[in-house]
This record gives sequence, structure tokens and C-alpha cells, in this order.
Amino acid sequence: MRMVDLIEKKRDGGELTTEEINFIIEGYTNDQIPDYQVSALAMAIFYKDMTERERADLTMAIVNSGETIDLSAIEGVKVDKHSTGGVGDTTTLVLAPLVAALDIPVAKMSGRGLGHTGGTIDKLEAIAGFHVEISKEEFVQLVNKHKIAVIGQSGNLTPADKKLYALRDVTATVNSIPLIASSIMSKKIAAGSDAIVLDVKTGAGAFMKTTEDAVELAQAMVRIGNNVGRKTMAVISDMSQPLGYAIGNALEVKEAIDTLKGEGPKDLEELCFALGRQMVFLANKAASLEEAEEMLKEVIRNGKALEKFKEFIANQGGDPTVVDHPEKLPQAAYRIEVPAKSDGVVAEIVADEIGTAAMWLGAGRATKESDIDLAVGLMLNKKVGDPVKAGESLVTIHANREDVKDVMEKIYENIRIADHADAPMLVHGIVKE
Amino acid sequence: MRMVDLIEKKRDGGELTTEEINFIIEGYTNDQIPDYQVSALAMAIFYKDMTERERADLTMAIVNSGETIDLSAIEGVKVDKHSTGGVGDTTTLVLAPLVAALDIPVAKMSGRGLGHTGGTIDKLEAIAGFHVEISKEEFVQLVNKHKIAVIGQSGNLTPADKKLYALRDVTATVNSIPLIASSIMSKKIAAGSDAIVLDVKTGAGAFMKTTEDAVELAQAMVRIGNNVGRKTMAVISDMSQPLGYAIGNALEVKEAIDTLKGEGPKDLEELCFALGRQMVFLANKAASLEEAEEMLKEVIRNGKALEKFKEFIANQGGDPTVVDHPEKLPQAAYRIEVPAKSDGVVAEIVADEIGTAAMWLGAGRATKESDIDLAVGLMLNKKVGDPVKAGESLVTIHANREDVKDVMEKIYENIRIADHADAPMLVHGIVKE
Repeated sequence: MRMVDLIEKKRDGGELTTEEINFIIEGYTNDQIPDYQVSALAMAIFYKDMTERERADLTMAIVNSGETIDLSAIEGVKVDKHSTGGVGDTTTLVLAPLVAALDIPVAKMSGRGLGHTGGTIDKLEAIAGFHVEISKEEFVQLVNKHKIAVIGQSGNLTPADKKLYALRDVTATVNSIPLIASSIMSKKIAAGSDAIVLDVKTGAGAFMKTTEDAVELAQAMVRIGNNVGRKTMAVISDMSQPLGYAIGNALEVKEAIDTLKGEGPKDLEELCFALGRQMVFLANKAASLEEAEEMLKEVIRNGKALEKFKEFIANQGGDPTVVDHPEKLPQAAYRIEVPAKSDGVVAEIVADEIGTAAMWLGAGRATKESDIDLAVGLMLNKKVGDPVKAGESLVTIHANREDVKDVMEKIYENIRIADHADAPMLVHGIVKE
Repeated sequence: MRMVDLIEKKRDGGELTTEEINFIIEGYTNDQIPDYQVSALAMAIFYKDMTERERADLTMAIVNSGETIDLSAIEGVKVDKHSTGGVGDTTTLVLAPLVAALDIPVAKMSGRGLGHTGGTIDKLEAIAGFHVEISKEEFVQLVNKHKIAVIGQSGNLTPADKKLYALRDVTATVNSIPLIASSIMSKKIAAGSDAIVLDVKTGAGAFMKTTEDAVELAQAMVRIGNNVGRKTMAVISDMSQPLGYAIGNALEVKEAIDTLKGEGPKDLEELCFALGRQMVFLANKAASLEEAEEMLKEVIRNGKALEKFKEFIANQGGDPTVVDHPEKLPQAAYRIEVPAKSDGVVAEIVADEIGTAAMWLGAGRATKESDIDLAVGLMLNKKVGDPVKAGESLVTIHANREDVKDVMEKIYENIRIADHADAPMLVHGIVKE
């Protein structure tokens, strides 16, 4: 088999066989096929796409390029949740204890944030002492005993994906549905869960800017998952504006705690239920989605979800008293209000730009090597559809520097006030096949 | 400027500016832009094509990536002829002395053969003593004094083309009109002639298998040439069967001599006139193509063309007596006939396959490093449209090995005899803009 012939086959719209896809991914992982051939192939795929079968094969070839996590020692149906990334997305911090409180095992492998997007591990590390550097054995034991644990991305998982992604990033081949879908799904499948609930974001703060694109990506991922034997479904959710009010690590932990108490932002709560009920249903713990949602509401009402969060924090070395005393979380030195310049209704809060403003404060990383400041961030005081009067605060800046002119300017540029505006729909659709 | 943005621009069908194209070719030549970005771009160009302006810019960027030949010290209009490559194509050996005999300067830079395609230098080296390793000064002096000289490809001409071609060869991006056209034209332009006559082959033995593709390539090259200030035109000629009768280096020299005597194969002679009259016309030596052709016929009739060939051979260290005594050319040890198996008319002689059969004998190179045998090759005794009787020889094999079963089999497989067949049209068209 020669790589040049396979590139030509795809270039001319042909379908690569399982054997051919394995040859490509194995060869690339082992440095036997050079970058310049793979980038040409990626560009051909950009134009010529891949069939459902090719996509599943590509995903499994990437999974098999490295180690995989074996969760078979954990009892029950392991359901993972994955978000395609957004701004102020605190759902994992809420969902993990919420679902675990229903005896559903949450064995979560998480990552750090980059750019305008936050990461679950960064957020959890805002809790003093909390750490994710635990052994695989400890991880499995914790989940079996407490139904919940989070581990950092470790080991040689999907090395082909790392190489491919780095290459696509510099060859204008990122934006290809089969390549995005196989990249995301390979990581989820290598991480070992039995079922996967995808939260595919759409809008300014998301990778997919339109609902059509988000649905296409969701369908691609759902089909890959189901084709390789993992029950998979997707919720298409809005990311035109940030989710909830908090953007920043400690601020989002506080918001997660509020939500577990039943006192969180409406949109964040709604999305947690939308995702959570699917997780409960896929875990075979409820006969219907309605029953599943009722069960989730019950563990919020009776405090079990909040207790589970405390237990989870304590298990991984963190200080569980932050749950009752959120003022113990890192606090920024300055709180600066951003007053509205006119009366009206908030019509737009451009999610990615607001995420970037928070990054400038130190809440996120410009590059993988950047340090972050866990205390800083933004608290939105208004969301799209909210009426506002001139002088009222739109946003509270939590900063560790006095001069935040740059951040303030960015915020003004990206919050639009109009005569009339409606709150956007939060859940745009459900994709099951 | 970032290469990834330029790839994305072309990927989405945009037009690259002159500055952007220069950035790409300069960066690639200097190893500042890696192969994997250029191969992705080449694949995007494969799908999205380039405008006429982009093609001209790309060509000139490749020309400017290295040295160029300055022929300004040579008096008169320098007209170059270029063939896209075929089997048994002896036109250069005939045309160079033919045109030079009309006082038109022929300053030719030539290459060696590869695969089923022959090269002019290999053929000339079949003449004892002939060499093309002459200095640029000597080259210019020879042309000024004798109107004819051939030099080997030397110096750092179009280094970007060498890198690009090697990359395209392994990334399935060879077959792209803008990339082929700019590659060929950059070499011709760097070689310094004022006007260019292109012989674009079509058919089994050619790179372009159909007349439509050949015309498209011809138009692309003619437009590039004219857009960068070189008078350029193209003849589309048949390469479904080999040109002339001879395939092999010494055999083709003999055939060129025959043609210069007015005793060559009809198709070779016809093509030499078709190309030659355009060269004479572009050199401003004739008022019409008809007049130009008459002038060419005259120098054959009066022996001046043949004298010019002898002069040319002697100038470059060769033995000019081979012209009157072609038996002095290298001779193969064995001559083996390939008898027709049935009566009928020759309906097909698959050019590239017959070229490959000659290569197996040693007449051509399988790889750039292969040695060749100047004496061996094939002499066709029949061409398409010729009647044949069972037992009559179709081909005479000139071999330096006794067992030629493989070659004979290949010949039988690729010469088809039918009840009826017409000779193919030789010149399929003329492209001037």
C-alpha cells in the first residue's frame, strides 16, 4: 500500500477501506508517513468528506493509536458528558455530583482551558487542596465507593489525534466535520465510558457558529459513537452569549455551588437538567426523561447533590467547607462595575469576545504555557433580553489589577443595548441518530 | 503574513495576490515554509484552481527562485521548442539544425529521459564524442557563430520547481493544470528564450490522455507565456502511438538524419514542419506560415540542414561522419523480429507501453539513477492504419540480450490488429491564446 495512492483515491472522491485507514493512522503515529502526505490527505477530506463507515474507522484507528482506559472495574453504566467548549460553561461541575448523587458512576477525565474557553480542572483547582493527579487505581476505587472522581488527562491516549490536530491547525484543515468528529469521539471512546452525552454548542462563543453546522457535527459524532458501540446522543445548546453569569474559575465554582443548592442562573440550571436527564436515562436509572429530570430535581431539593459535591472535594484533597463558605474561594483584589451607557434591553453579549476579556484578566490561557489567576473573571449582571437602565451595572469585573480599561472597552464593544430583544432559546435541538 | 491564512484563502476559493504568491515560493525555497503546508496548499489548488493572473505570478515566482539564463548576448530572436514528452519523439534533433540552417539562433537547454519518455541529451550522446558539458560562455559563442548549441541543465535554475515537483509527486497533486503549466513554463522562461513553441502531446503516451485536457494545458501555458512577455503558442499533437518508427537513442539519431535528408517517417516530418514553421514565423523570418514551411523544405532539399547538423555535432566534440555513415552509431548485438499473428490492419500501438518495452531493453531509465544502453530499442515496421499479413514483422527489436520474451510479450499485448483502422490525425489543433 502506498500513501500517495490513498491520497489520490480520496482526492477523487473514493472511499477508503478499513485497512487503508488503519495503514494511514498507524503509519502516521509511527512517523512512517510524513506530515506532508497527511496534510494533503486532510485537505482532500476537507473537500471530499468521509462516509459514515470511514468516520467510524478513522475514530477507532485513532483510539487504537495509543492506550485506552479500562473502566470495566467500575460497576454500573459509565456515562460521560462532553461539551464542545464555551464561555462560562460550568455544567460539568454541577452535573458530576448531581448524577453521582443518583448512584450513577461519574469517572471523568478532564482537561485545562485554552483561549476564551475554560477547563474543568482549572475550575476545580480553585478549591484549596483539590488535585486531579491520582493513580488509575485510586480513580477506580473512588468511583466505585463514591460514584465520582475526576482525573487529569494522562498517559498516551490518542497520540494520533495529537499529531493530527497540530498538523491540521497549521494547514487550514481544522474545519472539517469528519476530522472534528473523529478527533472528539476518539478521545471520549479512549476514555472508556459506556455512553456519551454530547453538548454541542452553537453561536459566537462556539466552534460551530450556526445551528445547522452544530447539528451536522452532532450527527456525525452521534453516528460514530453508536457505530462503534457506545450509546451516544447530543444536545445542541446556545453559546451566543456566555452560559450563566460567572466567567472565571473561582467564580464558576461558586456558581456551581449555587446551582446545586437550587439557586443558580436559570439557563445554567436548564442546561444541566437537559443534559443530566439524558445521562440518567442512558444509565438506565429512569424509565423516561421526565422521570429522570424529576430524580435530578429531588437530589437538589433534598441536599444530596450538594453533599455529594462536598464528598467529592474531600476525596480529592480539597477543602469541602468552601461549599458552605464560598468566601473561602480565591477572591480578586478589585471589583469594578461596568455601567450601562443607555437605557434599553440587552440585545447581544458576544460570548467569545467576553471570554477573551476574562482571559485578559488572567482567568484563561492565551497559550498552553500561560499561567492563570483562579480568582479573577467577570460576573454578568444582565443577560440577553434583560431590561437595563443607564448607569446600572452590566458586568462586575473581578480583577487583581487596578487598571482594567482594556477589559472594560472590550466589554462595551461586545454588549449591545437595543430597544427590544428576546432571550435566545437555550436548547436548539436533540440529536439521537 | 501567515502561510496557514493563505492556505485557508485558497481553500475557500480566494485569489492569492502577487505578494502572497511570492511569500509562499520564497518561503518554500528558503525552507521557511514546511512541506506539509505547501502540500495542503497544492491540494487546495487542485480543487480550486488559480486565475490567469495567479498562474503568471506563480510562474514568475518560481523563475525568480533561482538563477536565470541571460541570452541577450545572442543576436536575433531566440525561439525555444518544448515537448511535454512522448515516445520516439525525435523532433528536437531534426528541428534544431533545420531552424538553425535558416539563421535562427537555437540555444537549447536539454534534459535526460525518464520512464517511457526519451531525452534529447541521451540521444545526442549516442554520437561518439558528443558532449553537452560546455560553459555558458562557450554556449553563447557557439550560438552566435553557428546558430546552434545544446547545453545540459545546469546551475540553480528554478529550485522552487524542483522542490515543488518532488512534493507533488508524493502527495497526489501532480495532476493540476495551474501547477503543471507553471512548472513547465517557469523552466522555459528561466532558460531565457524570447519565444516558445510548445508541442503538447495527447493520447496514451502523453501526460494528457485526452485532447480536451491537452488543449486546456496548452491554453494555460500559452497564456502564462504571453502574460509574462514571451511570445508563446502551442501545437497539440498525437501521442496515441509512438512518433516515427524509431524508439531508442541511436535509432532515433539515425531517424533524425533520415528526416533531415527528406527521407524520414511521414508523421515525424509532418510534425517537424508543423512546429518548425511556427518557430520560423515567431523568429520573424517569414511573413506567413506557408512561406516559413517552404523555407524549411528548401534547406532540406539543398542539404543545408544536414550540413548544419554535421557542424553542430563537430562543434560539441562529436563525430560528424555518423551523418553519412549511420552504421557508425552504436549497434545492438541482436535484431529480433516480432511477426504479426494474423492478417488485418494495425489498429492500435499503445505509445507508453511500447516506450516501457524499449525501457526494459535498456533504452530508457526506470529511475533517475539507471544506466542506459544507447544502442538498443525498437523499430516499428508498421504504424496505425497500415495493412499487415500474418508473419510480417510488426517491430524489430534491437537488443543486447538474446532472450527478449518479456519485451515481445509486451509488444504483442500493445499492438492490436483489426479488420479496419485509420491512421490517427497527427496535429489536433493550434493554441495561440
